[in-house]
Amino acid sequence: MKTLLEAIRPTTFIESEKLKSFLGIDLTVVSETFQHTGSFKFRAAYNLALNVPNEEILTASSGNFGQALAYACQLLQKKCTVVMPETSARIKIEAVRNYGATVDLVDTRRIGRNERVAQLAKQMPDAYYASAYDDLFVIEGNSTLGDEIANRDFDIIVSPIGGGGLISGIVQGLCRNGNKAKLVGAEPLLGNDAFQSLLSGRIIRNEIEPITVADGARTISLGKLNWEFIKKGVSQIVEVSEENIKKAVQILFTHANLKVEPTGALPLGAIVEKPEIFAKKKVCLVVSGGNVDPEVYRRILGENKN
Amino acid sequence: MKTLLEAIRPTTFIESEKLKSFLGIDLTVVSETFQHTGSFKFRAAYNLALNVPNEEILTASSGNFGQALAYACQLLQKKCTVVMPETSARIKIEAVRNYGATVDLVDTRRIGRNERVAQLAKQMPDAYYASAYDDLFVIEGNSTLGDEIANRDFDIIVSPIGGGGLISGIVQGLCRNGNKAKLVGAEPLLGNDAFQSLLSGRIIRNEIEPITVADGARTISLGKLNWEFIKKGVSQIVEVSEENIKKAVQILFTHANLKVEPTGALPLGAIVEKPEIFAKKKVCLVVSGGNVDPEVYRRILGENKN
Repeated sequence: MKTLLEAIRPTTFIESEKLKSFLGIDLTVVSETFQHTGSFKFRAAYNLALNVPNEEILTASSGNFGQALAYACQLLQKKCTVVMPETSARIKIEAVRNYGATVDLVDTRRIGRNERVAQLAKQMPDAYYASAYDDLFVIEGNSTLGDEIANRDFDIIVSPIGGGGLISGIVQGLCRNGNKAKLVGAEPLLGNDAFQSLLSGRIIRNEIEPITVADGARTISLGKLNWEFIKKGVSQIVEVSEENIKKAVQILFTHANLKVEPTGALPLGAIVEKPEIFAKKKVCLVVSGGNVDPEVYRRILGENKN
Repeated sequence: MKTLLEAIRPTTFIESEKLKSFLGIDLTVVSETFQHTGSFKFRAAYNLALNVPNEEILTASSGNFGQALAYACQLLQKKCTVVMPETSARIKIEAVRNYGATVDLVDTRRIGRNERVAQLAKQMPDAYYASAYDDLFVIEGNSTLGDEIANRDFDIIVSPIGGGGLISGIVQGLCRNGNKAKLVGAEPLLGNDAFQSLLSGRIIRNEIEPITVADGARTISLGKLNWEFIKKGVSQIVEVSEENIKKAVQILFTHANLKVEPTGALPLGAIVEKPEIFAKKKVCLVVSGGNVDPEVYRRILGENKN
């Protein structure tokens, strides 16, 4: 059985002169697109599956956490059940099944995802219910990325923010390494609850799940545990328009040869929104993942005006 | 002034469980898509510009070598002239110009590229004329990738082959490290001169420049110097259909989050063509570069049937 550090793939640091000169900013890309299962979530999922004593794990995820947890459980020979909306892309359902997990398809017109999870939790009293972000094992797993970043010398680090799992991990990693770089969150303007929360000093919720192209950030609010890290360790949240999220996907394609999912492009979107924050700084750009449906990606590239 | 090893970016080794399990083959991707200027050609170009005594360098290239040489000359403060067809994509012409090189646009209906190069060479008697492949500095530069591969333990290495610059470098690198892995070239079926050459034991030429989607392999024949390395060090050439080149681009997108240019997908195309050669082997897949026009890429993804 591999330890967390043995199981994860170290992140990929990319310094693209072409991207730097296009943006006029000194930046290094930290790409988790080549992490196992294609996103940073594997760090969280493996740490959780490794450390909870339960032999069964239950989660609700239509995206990267579901795949990551399914794969982690396969490696650790634990049972895994992932609740997914019936309307999820076939390719994502198959990916979870291929890692040996049970997929529980929910007709979300008839029953809410959380209700279904509660039902299942009753049926599986020995299972551990894993939140994709609001969990200390998740944050601890993601902190390994913070450690990797802390080994380098940056002035400012910009990371996507949804439920807050990744950025809390980065806070934890930077903190324990005594790294004082400024940490900025990049959030879709359409679901700007983290921005509002940091302004008002308490967790603010979106009224509905925001329909942003950055599907990894379609969260109602920050997690409670995440909020404790974020209010201490995050300096600022930049709201990113849908247009600039897509523009960032295009720029990374054209100038860095990097295939990223829209959520992974949020940090570059933040630079496009507010270049003045990043000017003359040594910037670390955290690209959280690369899993995107080919049709969605084609549509975004088709809007390319660079 | 940086040495070659200081100037290049080490290659990116990617082991994707998803890709391995999709193909049923134990393979490691060696990606040069994040090399400076987006392809392995920077290794060749920098080594050449560093070592020739001339202050001016002349080449003909509509693709990756032009960009790489322009950037290398910018770093080394040498003059660079790149002959390009007038019909080249605007984005490629601009890329070369942005690195400070002079672009000489040729109306190829009126004058051949080689003729134009000959004219220019007369006008610039002090310039070094750089072939993109048939040059010992080029091969020596590319051999650094062979060194990186030789440090790992593979049974079989598969590399694209066009003029033969990359694969000759790999032969040189493997050879001097005493690495005995089998080396296979992957060539478009539409321009199978290397396949024919290896069969007949002498350089065979394509009648015309092959119109393959793998534009980095649109060469008339192997270079003379390259042929000397290839006949000794390459075991086999696999011919890859246009359909399988495109399929390989799609597979790398879907299963490895990797944006590759069609030429860079040739080795995976070879695996799709002839999986039996690679079964039960530890395979090294050399992805030579990632620079592809967004429209071409969109078109290829649109044909996705995976």
